[in-house]
Amino acid sequence: MDVSTEKIFTQFKEHSVAEFFKKNRQMLGFSGKVRSLTTIIHEYVTNSLDACEEGGIFPEITVEVKEIEEDKYWVRSSDNGPGIPQKHIGKALGMMLAGTKFHRYVQQRGQQGIGASGSTMFAQITTGKPIKFDSYYDKKRVHGELSVDFQKNEPLMRNAVVEETDGSRHGLIVEGEFAEVKYDRSSFSVYEYIKRTALVNPHAAITLIEPTGEKITFPRSVDMLPPKPREIRPHPLGITTNDLMEFIRSDKESRKIGSSLQNIFSRMSAGKVAELAALCPGVDFERAPKDLQWADAEKIVKAIHSGKDKISWIAPETDAIVPIGKDQVEKSMRSILAPEFMAITERKPKIYKGGVPFVVEAALAWGGNCGRPVADGHNSDIMRFANRAPLLFDAGGCAITEAIKSVEWKRYGIRDFENEKITVLVNLSSVHVPYTGAGKQAVATEEEVVDEVKMAVMEAARDLQRYLHGMTRERVRVERKKAIMRYLKQLSADLAELAGGKAKAADLEKKLLHLIETKYAGKIEEDESGDANIEEEISAEEEKVDE
Amino acid sequence: MDVSTEKIFTQFKEHSVAEFFKKNRQMLGFSGKVRSLTTIIHEYVTNSLDACEEGGIFPEITVEVKEIEEDKYWVRSSDNGPGIPQKHIGKALGMMLAGTKFHRYVQQRGQQGIGASGSTMFAQITTGKPIKFDSYYDKKRVHGELSVDFQKNEPLMRNAVVEETDGSRHGLIVEGEFAEVKYDRSSFSVYEYIKRTALVNPHAAITLIEPTGEKITFPRSVDMLPPKPREIRPHPLGITTNDLMEFIRSDKESRKIGSSLQNIFSRMSAGKVAELAALCPGVDFERAPKDLQWADAEKIVKAIHSGKDKISWIAPETDAIVPIGKDQVEKSMRSILAPEFMAITERKPKIYKGGVPFVVEAALAWGGNCGRPVADGHNSDIMRFANRAPLLFDAGGCAITEAIKSVEWKRYGIRDFENEKITVLVNLSSVHVPYTGAGKQAVATEEEVVDEVKMAVMEAARDLQRYLHGMTRERVRVERKKAIMRYLKQLSADLAELAGGKAKAADLEKKLLHLIETKYAGKIEEDESGDANIEEEISAEEEKVDE
Repeated sequence: MDVSTEKIFTQFKEHSVAEFFKKNRQMLGFSGKVRSLTTIIHEYVTNSLDACEEGGIFPEITVEVKEIEEDKYWVRSSDNGPGIPQKHIGKALGMMLAGTKFHRYVQQRGQQGIGASGSTMFAQITTGKPIKFDSYYDKKRVHGELSVDFQKNEPLMRNAVVEETDGSRHGLIVEGEFAEVKYDRSSFSVYEYIKRTALVNPHAAITLIEPTGEKITFPRSVDMLPPKPREIRPHPLGITTNDLMEFIRSDKESRKIGSSLQNIFSRMSAGKVAELAALCPGVDFERAPKDLQWADAEKIVKAIHSGKDKISWIAPETDAIVPIGKDQVEKSMRSILAPEFMAITERKPKIYKGGVPFVVEAALAWGGNCGRPVADGHNSDIMRFANRAPLLFDAGGCAITEAIKSVEWKRYGIRDFENEKITVLVNLSSVHVPYTGAGKQAVATEEEVVDEVKMAVMEAARDLQRYLHGMTRERVRVERKKAIMRYLKQLSADLAELAGGKAKAADLEKKLLHLIETKYAGKIEEDESGDANIEEEISAEEEKVDE
Repeated sequence: MDVSTEKIFTQFKEHSVAEFFKKNRQMLGFSGKVRSLTTIIHEYVTNSLDACEEGGIFPEITVEVKEIEEDKYWVRSSDNGPGIPQKHIGKALGMMLAGTKFHRYVQQRGQQGIGASGSTMFAQITTGKPIKFDSYYDKKRVHGELSVDFQKNEPLMRNAVVEETDGSRHGLIVEGEFAEVKYDRSSFSVYEYIKRTALVNPHAAITLIEPTGEKITFPRSVDMLPPKPREIRPHPLGITTNDLMEFIRSDKESRKIGSSLQNIFSRMSAGKVAELAALCPGVDFERAPKDLQWADAEKIVKAIHSGKDKISWIAPETDAIVPIGKDQVEKSMRSILAPEFMAITERKPKIYKGGVPFVVEAALAWGGNCGRPVADGHNSDIMRFANRAPLLFDAGGCAITEAIKSVEWKRYGIRDFENEKITVLVNLSSVHVPYTGAGKQAVATEEEVVDEVKMAVMEAARDLQRYLHGMTRERVRVERKKAIMRYLKQLSADLAELAGGKAKAADLEKKLLHLIETKYAGKIEEDESGDANIEEEISAEEEKVDE
């Protein structure tokens, strides 16, 4: 060994999370000029939508982008949400891992408490400038400038001014200058991001003012706010021992482990606690929550999972999760894709580990403007969403992409999925989406999630398959009829001639046609069918997934 | 609005980075049973290799995995590195974003200060147990138990004992129990991880003891330590304004901006500073470093980039980066793949943004045991490495994968890359690898990195193409000769007969053969060639990438 440990460890240092993400900004989605700009807008728009939802407000959001010089843009995002109070605005926009979202068990687009602070950081490190904020809330307005103190991960506020207002206005405006970014209309752009956001948030009015000055408005197309997501208690199924330990040990309200279980979990009645106790001999449910030991917690978790024959659980609360809804997805997709055929699946909530419920919606659109036009035809298009926020990047490692690609499309009449005029939309709604990274652009390939997405897409694909099969059948029917009609014309003429003018050809034709239509039409259709076989195959595949 | 902002913001909270990663453990690579176990081993092994490198020691690492019950394993990792002193061991293994690696400009496998603490966290949240450590350093030994206080992101040490030793032993042993993990030998497994680590670290001896008790040893195959990576100063090219501001403003040693530039950057002589000053009228290089303003820094950065005709820079220091080396790659790959053909490219260091130098090594092996056997033949195999650590996961979003897939393989005689018996190895060495996530399994698709990997692979592919082309040519030559020989035999016999016994058929044959070989052989080979055209195409493609 040629170096002393002392020398090696003179360099030992601690770092703030802000320094970490400054050095690893690509982890927040700040890599590439186009992507970086989309990431900035993404953070502001998702925050605005979340804030409006929280406040029960129809969102009106305006995003404006202006080019200052090459690769340097000015961005302004404004909403009509509840605004952010003076006391919190510094931390909300200038401190990482702070906010109202991280720890709550409720469906939101943001969930990490990094987003908007990441954009502030990016303004600083690319232009050296703070961002400007202007917040209207209650009967107040606060505006000023904000940056991040990277060493401490703390907000630095400058020139802040608080004013009284008449309370008629509420909302938040953020603006900043960002370099190393670029505006275009590619499939990873701000334009595409906002278009897709509008697609799955028809209750919001979103306006984009492009650097060219062009103003694009995606108007509100429904007059009903989506039901407000409720904060829920976790479901016992799928909970880990560690979760249980943390929940129960930090429960200051309950006096006993038994009552703490009821207090903490959803679907946990006194009866269920008794059933659990019976399955956990040796575990004292009368002890104080703070005294719960790992070994006992482990036994309880095992008992929770001991199977339907021993203990059965009511499915997780569904009203805590707010999917887009079948009608709204259909309306939105029809308007932008004008497909020949559409199928939409809405599935029941499922749980993935940690007792986290989630709902998958899948829509399949075919023909019309579906897919993605390329030089030599059309590619298929996958539109991924999580809690109604578009996922534009990192498609490769995403559970949604993986699930869709694993479908055996040939079984559903799609010979070459990649090159089909088809658009698949999947929206995953959950109180905690398992993102692969802090950039929130891909869903981790948790088995339960992949399986559920696959099932939802297969369900929609089955409808498409019927439609495509019907089309084939219809084509065959039409062709057969044509052939018969040709024969019929000749036969009628011949018969008329044979009858020596006693019957008119036209009358004969009419009678023969009637005969054929009433007596043989059914048979012609039946023998073309093969549905039964195909449906059997599909069921077999679905059973495989279910296992 | 139906909720007051006050109510909304009652939930405003701050969180520690440990809580963040506990909730988002998938971001550290803890998703899926097999992957989670690989991640644990990955963190320990990369730390061991880094530590040995730092100490100038031939690494001897032993990893042992035992099954405790289903999905629950005991893991022990030991090395002969310098050990970690008592003062630092808590933070090194039980605090996120702490360590010797994060801030230093030197090539290391680890670079984030999260790794081993992530494994400690994972032990806690899956089994509720701390990890055990046993560190031998200098003339001391410290052992005990360690966990993470998630709320504070601080280490919790228990039962720590410090003893004096005779100093003959040094190294670190870490062991722990982990649940929600699984051992197998799949392509994402601990086994594969260690095999690949051994492949690119032939100076290390690594032993894996599997749960079955089987002991697999990858012995040290070279007797030379890789050159020790030097800590370097950043190169001015590619530096951002923010980097410059931070570097200069925190320079306590220099009295002027001009001398600070020399102090901070590599390749920055007094002459270069004068050249820069001439390109930045209005910027006062005599001012104190702490007074550098953003606008001036921006001008300096622009001047740095003003092009070769105005200011030219010496390429970045190369000895700070330690690639594997052509010979060692070849030796390793030959021993495990026994390929029919191999080509290896070693390219000069390049820089990506922030003045970060990097070196790409690419190796292409064909035939033999290359590729990945599948049910109906062989798939191609891509082996990705960063600073000699294998990247097993997240292949989809990785710059290396993207670059390799973007090569037009047909041009190089590979008709269907996906289904070829081919293995492509790429190792990216850098003082700062731009990973896409904290799990360090994919390289962000920075343009410079993607282009450079593509160039390196194309260079190797060109050699392969020549070989494959030569094979084709050789086959054609052999067939032609066969055809001529058939004709020759007949002709000789006929001539002999015509000559009425004056000449023997065998003699005639010999003479004719000699005639053909000396006079026509060259022509036969020449007219089969098409090399010139293909090489032109390749050059054209390479120029495109260079632009």
